[in-house]
Amino acid sequence: MFEAAELGRSLSKSEFEKLEPEIHSKFLQLQQSLRKSDKSLIVIVSGVEGAGKGEIVDRLNRWFDTRDVQTHAYWDASDEENQRPWMWRFWRDMPARKTISIMFGSWYTRPLVEAAYKKISEAQLDQTLTEIQELERSLIENGTIIIKLWFHLSKEEQRSRLENEAKVKKFKKSPLLEDFSANYDRFAVVCEHALRHTDSGFAPWHIIEATNYRYRDIATGDAIIHQLSIALESEPETKANAEISSKAELTDAESAHLTVLDKVDVTQSLSDKDYGEKLTTMQARLHELAWQMYAQKRNAVIMFEGWDAAGKGSAIRRITSAIDARLYRVIPIAAPTDEEKDHHYLWRFWRHIPRAGRITIYDRSWYGRVLVERVEGFARENEWRRAYQEINNFEDQLLDHGIVLCKFWLHIGKDEQLRRFRERENDERKQHKITEEDWRNRENWDAYMLAVNDMVAHTSTSRAPWTLVAGNDKKFARIQILETVCSSISAALSQQN
Amino acid sequence: MFEAAELGRSLSKSEFEKLEPEIHSKFLQLQQSLRKSDKSLIVIVSGVEGAGKGEIVDRLNRWFDTRDVQTHAYWDASDEENQRPWMWRFWRDMPARKTISIMFGSWYTRPLVEAAYKKISEAQLDQTLTEIQELERSLIENGTIIIKLWFHLSKEEQRSRLENEAKVKKFKKSPLLEDFSANYDRFAVVCEHALRHTDSGFAPWHIIEATNYRYRDIATGDAIIHQLSIALESEPETKANAEISSKAELTDAESAHLTVLDKVDVTQSLSDKDYGEKLTTMQARLHELAWQMYAQKRNAVIMFEGWDAAGKGSAIRRITSAIDARLYRVIPIAAPTDEEKDHHYLWRFWRHIPRAGRITIYDRSWYGRVLVERVEGFARENEWRRAYQEINNFEDQLLDHGIVLCKFWLHIGKDEQLRRFRERENDERKQHKITEEDWRNRENWDAYMLAVNDMVAHTSTSRAPWTLVAGNDKKFARIQILETVCSSISAALSQQN
Repeated sequence: MFEAAELGRSLSKSEFEKLEPEIHSKFLQLQQSLRKSDKSLIVIVSGVEGAGKGEIVDRLNRWFDTRDVQTHAYWDASDEENQRPWMWRFWRDMPARKTISIMFGSWYTRPLVEAAYKKISEAQLDQTLTEIQELERSLIENGTIIIKLWFHLSKEEQRSRLENEAKVKKFKKSPLLEDFSANYDRFAVVCEHALRHTDSGFAPWHIIEATNYRYRDIATGDAIIHQLSIALESEPETKANAEISSKAELTDAESAHLTVLDKVDVTQSLSDKDYGEKLTTMQARLHELAWQMYAQKRNAVIMFEGWDAAGKGSAIRRITSAIDARLYRVIPIAAPTDEEKDHHYLWRFWRHIPRAGRITIYDRSWYGRVLVERVEGFARENEWRRAYQEINNFEDQLLDHGIVLCKFWLHIGKDEQLRRFRERENDERKQHKITEEDWRNRENWDAYMLAVNDMVAHTSTSRAPWTLVAGNDKKFARIQILETVCSSISAALSQQN
Repeated sequence: MFEAAELGRSLSKSEFEKLEPEIHSKFLQLQQSLRKSDKSLIVIVSGVEGAGKGEIVDRLNRWFDTRDVQTHAYWDASDEENQRPWMWRFWRDMPARKTISIMFGSWYTRPLVEAAYKKISEAQLDQTLTEIQELERSLIENGTIIIKLWFHLSKEEQRSRLENEAKVKKFKKSPLLEDFSANYDRFAVVCEHALRHTDSGFAPWHIIEATNYRYRDIATGDAIIHQLSIALESEPETKANAEISSKAELTDAESAHLTVLDKVDVTQSLSDKDYGEKLTTMQARLHELAWQMYAQKRNAVIMFEGWDAAGKGSAIRRITSAIDARLYRVIPIAAPTDEEKDHHYLWRFWRHIPRAGRITIYDRSWYGRVLVERVEGFARENEWRRAYQEINNFEDQLLDHGIVLCKFWLHIGKDEQLRRFRERENDERKQHKITEEDWRNRENWDAYMLAVNDMVAHTSTSRAPWTLVAGNDKKFARIQILETVCSSISAALSQQN
């Protein structure tokens, strides 16, 4: 979930100085619209220690006209607060219509800390998260806009800030930073779990990379402007599509547009000899593992997404040729049938869930909702936004049943795609594989990059991670995929179901 | 929660024969509208064993044109089903747009049975209920209408059916009935918990008394017609208010209109001597208990609703005169202030939650949302319907914190109210207590009866029960209230906080 916030996104000083005033004016305009509306606004500022949440709060107080803004910091609870139900302190601070509450810390803080320190069990955390979801839904249904910001730092970055802080500005040292840093991994697991379970369509999380403070602040402004504009629209349904691309307008600076895909080193390759050897080994291993899965009545779902011409088909063939034909099915996902269109969009995937001991391979998948349907505007913004949680819930069902789940995105460079398209056009036996639609999709490359990045940010979790495959060299890609499938299966087989 | 379904509601044969054809035609009309819409319909038929769920399913299949209707019975799971995530079997049976699935049993069945037999823990049940809520929300957001019916029998009634069945028609004996009947109480607790946690505004439960089969079937028809008409409206917001009263049109038969209030024996009374003695005893006891609460840092919330002139004020004075003035506050709830109007409707009640060792007495309460706001049309149907769950969540917060909660409805007969109104008009010292509004409210007596009944059905639980006070005799009422408060407090003090 957090890998999309460890990309090294940054902005130069000059870029920042160009963008900051624009955001400031836009904030004041939106605040005017809020005053004319019947709604109130809560901005939740949370995230890892050391990410500069205090600076963000200062920034928001500069961008908004502070007459209607209250900032509430949730630190240790007072006697007054401890003597009442734990949500009482937040109810006290709920903004009135037309006004804004900035919450530094929030109803997430206490449960996260308590869960990380094992003062409450996982089940208790889940019960609290359900309470929180109900609270947020009730607030929203009664006219409050809730914008949830999560500021992220990598473990190394947090550690180095801790060291710097110790050296330089002792007067501002956070008493918690040291403690939190020592427990980074434990917090990461709990926070990912909590964010995932509360990342609803009606109150989504914005996960913002906080390493570069200029990028952090501009991305924050951008996220707030985006969500607030949509929420203040009188007809959100009709307007939603027009807004989809606004997030990409952050700046022209390339460093601000890094996505998880930019971190994939597509130049990795394998020699023919290495490939041949590894392919034989891995396929033999997979053959054996598939039979073990059958014997232990475990089922698996393997799922492929990726650019057109990235090599999904040939990668799938390297898997299927290793497995006994009685044990697997490949489900190619094209346009839905009439019957499928008449059902919930997940229905067509539920149909093909394998039974015990079998494997289903999906060639494209339920992620179409947040990829092609988003980019092409087939799904409205509220539809694809809530799909993240629907998909997470769906995958939870699979995992809870003990199904092994592998999710692959096959990545190739834009140039490599062009080369393959040309090759297909020039080869009679491959001409059927290239269509007008492929060229049209290619024109939306940047929009897809953004959609893939958001998809990974919202649905790649420690429980169900995405594997981003370096695909320029087909041999390298196939081996990476085979290795991932084999290691997922053997890890699952070595655990209790 | 189930007390509102143990009222002995019934219909005569002639009433049934008059109403049944009307419902049948209305079903066919609504089915036509469904065919013209983009929606699908799921009817969930569940409830206690022996309530005649099979008969209901037969009836629904007669009322609907069965060409578009599929009935699915969820009995023991097949191998196919056991080998996949447990929700797979339901996804298989999801209705396509324009069609209907009647589910005999549902996603509720397995978790309820497993929780009653302690095969899963309470926390696991809650996690499953959350999954179910997410599923229902996702289905609804994607165009499915879900009508959830729960058929209830009292413990005695279920037992007597079991005995009859054994005697008469052995060929149709349910193998589960005996088992369920022996575990009635255990099921009641689990089912109440589950119903309460899934009684959302978007998919409310209809709890239907199943003792008299004619009433049961007509009430079922009525509930489906009501919810389906609203769901198929293109502009549900504007139409909602017009629909509020449709439920009351079930029939003119008094026996079909029984509410929980009809079961309150308002004629109960106390002699002056008994009253004097009990008042002295109970007030002394309450005085002592309030100081014990203070010493143990426990807080309490006591809440009054009731008819105009039912004697709320004087009952509250009997409480407050017993308690040290430093320990309690009385919060009279009139029309909200401007500031209160600008917040969530629960905000004004959260404000006054007492701190440790203190007691807040609310003279009228958060239930205004589902009483006066519903009856007067200040809240739209979707608003007051979802309020049941919002209120249950709110009270859960109080109870989870260890707050003692007493909820009183002061009931008087309609004649007694008239007598008191006249008395007030004729007594100069009391004239200020009677206004035009009181007379107007009185005209809505029947609508309030219905609202109170629904309120008790949705919010009276073993954890936070309503006490319906027999109020024609003020002395009797005051003692009932004092006794209830004292016993709630002493029960709480004897438990761990």
